[in-house]
Amino acid sequence: MKAPAGLQDLMEALRCLPGVGPRSAQRMAYHLLQRDHAGAQRLATSLDYALKYIRHCEKCNNFTEEPVCELCRSPRRDATMLCIVEMPADLLMMEQAHCYQGMYFVLMGRLSPLDGVGPRDIHLDRLLKRIQDPVRDQVVREVVLATNFTVEGEATAHYIGELLHGKGAKVSRIARGLPVGGELEHVDSGTLAQSMIERREL
Amino acid sequence: MKAPAGLQDLMEALRCLPGVGPRSAQRMAYHLLQRDHAGAQRLATSLDYALKYIRHCEKCNNFTEEPVCELCRSPRRDATMLCIVEMPADLLMMEQAHCYQGMYFVLMGRLSPLDGVGPRDIHLDRLLKRIQDPVRDQVVREVVLATNFTVEGEATAHYIGELLHGKGAKVSRIARGLPVGGELEHVDSGTLAQSMIERREL
Repeated sequence: MKAPAGLQDLMEALRCLPGVGPRSAQRMAYHLLQRDHAGAQRLATSLDYALKYIRHCEKCNNFTEEPVCELCRSPRRDATMLCIVEMPADLLMMEQAHCYQGMYFVLMGRLSPLDGVGPRDIHLDRLLKRIQDPVRDQVVREVVLATNFTVEGEATAHYIGELLHGKGAKVSRIARGLPVGGELEHVDSGTLAQSMIERREL
Repeated sequence: MKAPAGLQDLMEALRCLPGVGPRSAQRMAYHLLQRDHAGAQRLATSLDYALKYIRHCEKCNNFTEEPVCELCRSPRRDATMLCIVEMPADLLMMEQAHCYQGMYFVLMGRLSPLDGVGPRDIHLDRLLKRIQDPVRDQVVREVVLATNFTVEGEATAHYIGELLHGKGAKVSRIARGLPVGGELEHVDSGTLAQSMIERREL
């Protein structure tokens, strides 16, 4: 005796979600079919919509529905500052800390040779292009490296620091106010703000 | 600064899944968009398919893609026995314990007056009809109540026991081999098999 094929497919499909094993997937599938048809329909529609319309911003590489995202188009942001983060979630955390008014570049990853993630995979070619590409005639004067303080994040910061050496912009690193081994996504706003204020030049 | 609308919609839509809060939903949405477009597409398709084709079996009320499910159509099952479980997951657990060869009826819930769940919500009218409706000329001779040993599950078993009194079929309850307060879904096969073997007449 097995669940019907369509239900089994749904359970397996749910396992593409991070942290969802076979038992959770089963509970989720039954929950949706027993109690939340509307939610399931909305989820299917949102997935379709997101896959179709969400892309990367030409400037900062973050997710957006337009060619250039709202933040990169905003005249209220200081285009002489460029903060480099690993992930969109890190950018959101930084914004929630209200400590930074410049622009961003989202790597969508970190250097990790063991996982086969090299400079090309974290879009460093686009980062270089972005730095040489002024926004509203404002040239990037400082690049703030805000990658995580993990081994990969530190290596990424170091690599980018070397890469940008002599390119004209000052390069700084957010202060090690974060606990060693900590990740931006899981830190409180105060600590994050402190580490932005105490950033040091590389 | 907020995530684009399509991405925010996806995060909110993911929260319809049980056990998924705002932070998990954010992680899931980013994961799907960054690394698993194929998985996201498959999930959207599976949800659409399941919503369209999965329905309740006319006989046992379990999920199926056909009017009558495979188990109810199988000539190898003993149609004189009818086991009543709360949820499809309970039926799967029972089958995995390989201790029962009869038919099932899935309530898709349990009596819970505080949550507004009454006899009609757990399809007791259909259960009565099912018991009076022979399969392959075999009349139901024994009804085994295999609801959970929670307060609601026990109340449900008691209610159904009273309801079926004098209807001709013997009514039994799986043995209290399960720990008190325990749920079928989370028990090992051995304990479940034991409680099927030691079922007692009500």
